[in-house]
Amino acid sequence: MFNRIFMFAIIIGVPLSVIGSIMHWPAVSLFVIYCATIVALAGFMGRATESLAIVAGPRIGGLLNATFGNAVELIISIFALKAGLISVVLASLTGSVLGNLLLVGGLSFFIGGLKYKQQKFNIHDARHNAGLLIFAVVVALVFPEVFSYKLNDAESLTLSVWVSVIMIILYLAALLFKLVTHRGVYVSEHDEEHGEETAEWSKGKALLILALATVAVAYISEKLVHTFTEVGHTLGWSEVFIGVIIVAIVGNAAEHASAIIMAYKNKMNVAVEIAIGSTLQIAMFVAPVLVLVSLFFTHSMSLVFSLPELIAMVLAVFLTITLTSDGDTNWFEGLTLLAAYVIMGVGFYLL
Amino acid sequence: MFNRIFMFAIIIGVPLSVIGSIMHWPAVSLFVIYCATIVALAGFMGRATESLAIVAGPRIGGLLNATFGNAVELIISIFALKAGLISVVLASLTGSVLGNLLLVGGLSFFIGGLKYKQQKFNIHDARHNAGLLIFAVVVALVFPEVFSYKLNDAESLTLSVWVSVIMIILYLAALLFKLVTHRGVYVSEHDEEHGEETAEWSKGKALLILALATVAVAYISEKLVHTFTEVGHTLGWSEVFIGVIIVAIVGNAAEHASAIIMAYKNKMNVAVEIAIGSTLQIAMFVAPVLVLVSLFFTHSMSLVFSLPELIAMVLAVFLTITLTSDGDTNWFEGLTLLAAYVIMGVGFYLL
Amino acid sequence: MFNRIFMFAIIIGVPLSVIGSIMHWPAVSLFVIYCATIVALAGFMGRATESLAIVAGPRIGGLLNATFGNAVELIISIFALKAGLISVVLASLTGSVLGNLLLVGGLSFFIGGLKYKQQKFNIHDARHNAGLLIFAVVVALVFPEVFSYKLNDAESLTLSVWVSVIMIILYLAALLFKLVTHRGVYVSEHDEEHGEETAEWSKGKALLILALATVAVAYISEKLVHTFTEVGHTLGWSEVFIGVIIVAIVGNAAEHASAIIMAYKNKMNVAVEIAIGSTLQIAMFVAPVLVLVSLFFTHSMSLVFSLPELIAMVLAVFLTITLTSDGDTNWFEGLTLLAAYVIMGVGFYLL
Repeated sequence: MFNRIFMFAIIIGVPLSVIGSIMHWPAVSLFVIYCATIVALAGFMGRATESLAIVAGPRIGGLLNATFGNAVELIISIFALKAGLISVVLASLTGSVLGNLLLVGGLSFFIGGLKYKQQKFNIHDARHNAGLLIFAVVVALVFPEVFSYKLNDAESLTLSVWVSVIMIILYLAALLFKLVTHRGVYVSEHDEEHGEETAEWSKGKALLILALATVAVAYISEKLVHTFTEVGHTLGWSEVFIGVIIVAIVGNAAEHASAIIMAYKNKMNVAVEIAIGSTLQIAMFVAPVLVLVSLFFTHSMSLVFSLPELIAMVLAVFLTITLTSDGDTNWFEGLTLLAAYVIMGVGFYLL
Repeated sequence: MFNRIFMFAIIIGVPLSVIGSIMHWPAVSLFVIYCATIVALAGFMGRATESLAIVAGPRIGGLLNATFGNAVELIISIFALKAGLISVVLASLTGSVLGNLLLVGGLSFFIGGLKYKQQKFNIHDARHNAGLLIFAVVVALVFPEVFSYKLNDAESLTLSVWVSVIMIILYLAALLFKLVTHRGVYVSEHDEEHGEETAEWSKGKALLILALATVAVAYISEKLVHTFTEVGHTLGWSEVFIGVIIVAIVGNAAEHASAIIMAYKNKMNVAVEIAIGSTLQIAMFVAPVLVLVSLFFTHSMSLVFSLPELIAMVLAVFLTITLTSDGDTNWFEGLTLLAAYVIMGVGFYLL
Repeated sequence: MFNRIFMFAIIIGVPLSVIGSIMHWPAVSLFVIYCATIVALAGFMGRATESLAIVAGPRIGGLLNATFGNAVELIISIFALKAGLISVVLASLTGSVLGNLLLVGGLSFFIGGLKYKQQKFNIHDARHNAGLLIFAVVVALVFPEVFSYKLNDAESLTLSVWVSVIMIILYLAALLFKLVTHRGVYVSEHDEEHGEETAEWSKGKALLILALATVAVAYISEKLVHTFTEVGHTLGWSEVFIGVIIVAIVGNAAEHASAIIMAYKNKMNVAVEIAIGSTLQIAMFVAPVLVLVSLFFTHSMSLVFSLPELIAMVLAVFLTITLTSDGDTNWFEGLTLLAAYVIMGVGFYLL
């Protein structure tokens, strides 16, 4: 069903995006068209990546998922960086972390929990992820922030570059750990839920779709970021709110849908992997890559978030870790995560 | 034994309170009389609530305990709010959280631990409570604080009202979870410690006592809050210290006693439920209700604590969660909690 | 092998230190000679303490290890305090905490993990230590810091003295708990790794070596602290960087080596005990003793770290607790700790 809607959205959305941007339609209409089209294209990119991953086998497949999983987010952010919208990029990174942990995690646990009294997932993965979340969000993001109070901008950027390089190395090491040296070491009885997987598309078709969708996403993203200022003015939204809530939801909508569907099918390992794995990808791969890419642009980006952004991410991590540390979820834990998301949404709206 | 002392304290204390306040006795004497009488009355309210809870069955009983358990605290705070003493109210909320987690928890673990080498309690409850503590104290209180630096007072109040409404909804959802949808789901072998309970008083008698004691508490609380300023001057105590340490101990004395008795009887589930359950009630029900009630008074109260108060609560939560996460206590863990309480007491005294 | 190198270093290093200081060699050369000699002497002090501990039996032995384990650190710090270098002392305490948790812990887990796929250690100890780390580093150090913003210097010092006294009491209580009341209570199957231990040296020889090495360390430490300023100027290092990274590594080098060797022999209980036990000793014994000792010097030391130092320690504790809470380590967890150490090192270098 989603597939047909997405197909429809692309067939309508891509031409509308082109025409609208040429004819200078009102920013809010363009913003809506762009967002909807990107969501639909992201859905196709996800399916193409999935097909390629199955064809390529678990190791290369895991690598593909780990690098292309947040391609849309990455593309939008690069265009925003190029346009000098650093605070929007930081806000949308924040929003991705909050959205994945609290909104996706929350909806998955809540909706899954309405159907099943208790849902279990691999507790070893939960602990492995907890360590990485603390490293990637708490240590690696709080640290440059605290030091930035005492460093000048150049030193602060140097620290950010170091942190970024170390994060990318650790991210690659985590893939090595998970896909090679410790593959299958921490498997529990609940883990045989994947079953036989067959690729939806052939390798050639998947590559073609991935390429076309990426070009389209890039084209539309470039237009999208230039609507932010005007949309903010018209709707009374701050740039931070657009970044934290709107861009983050648009950039991750496809994944959100899959996670919730998986939870509803009681495949909690997959749902948790999407929610937390995607957060780690954002924090340990997308964010550092953006810092390094920004070195080539006029305005370089340090990993220095605003205090509300940073605290929101840290709180989301602590809440998620506390709730998932027992490898067991229920509707109430989902509701708790959603409650935190609403509080944060209100806070950023008021900001 | 406690019952007789309380009976005695009420028979003496209530008339003395009335006479003393009419005759304008020195503030410190009045303060002592009021405090002692409230402690005794709170003991009776607790017994009445307990009797009603047993008569009403576990679900309604749980609800009764959950709403009337901190009635005294609520009543004192409402009168303090009415008198414009917002900082005292925030301080006494802080003090209740610290007192329940560190003092009650600490004394229970320590005294219980002197008698038993290891005491166990339901680890599922511990984890459920850990999630709620992180939500209620860390997420829901830190968040308005951090945002308040960037918001004006009206926006800050709006955020507090939102947070309050969401907390009350989540509190009700937690009751639904615990008393209805997941009642008995997370029971472990150690949990059969309640045994057969018979109500001490009949429904009618309990209701009458509850009503009378509530009226008396309300009357005396109203007098009590007006002694704070003078008592502070006379004894050299700041209003914050009175709120954090004195009001919190008075408002929770009856519960403190029961928790320690339960720990001494090796009924750790009950002791932990009182210490942590009461904290959650304060943070997720009493505090938000006070924010909403304050909207009808001259001075509205935002959920913006002073930084030392906030940090003290957050630290208390982290320490409690770390120590209780294994479902196992001993005297040393109790001593650790008490050591933290003493450090915080000294800090607030010096403030 | 280490023993011979250390022997050699002492035979060469002690005379060189004396001659060099008399002849006023360049500060950087002296700094290197002093550091190398102290590392070698610390190795001998460790072996002497170990021998005495075995002769004295587990209880007194545990006490000996717990008090003399960080004697070098203590001696260097007392001379630095006497020289008024309070910020260097605070930095080196920070560095010891970071070095033990992240560098020693990280290297142990990483190198041990290259040889063994999974290494296990006593989970009860891990939890006991987690509680103490949260108490000693997070509660007891964050608290004076936050309050110091609102207190004057004298009040701040009073709070530090109270915190110090309480920490020492709790440290002694922890020894009582571990060595007396709960000795052997929390033993798991993996714990029989110590085997029969025989003392390397007789009691008399061990005492003599301990005494001589202590005198030599004291003499050289006194010289060492006076080279800091000039070394900093020459090499472009801040005093904080010298304290956090250099002094901490020199003061703990001998322990570092043992921990890593133990991990390589798959004796993870010992390795973890050295890394985390040593951190607790620093935070709960060395730091408070230094505060109390400083009362007799011209400049008293409050337990008020700089914000980067404090945050670095808190982050290190959260990361360590999250990674060790499952009683199970691997190379990737080690690498994560090392990555955090590198980030912090870069930060303090830039500061």
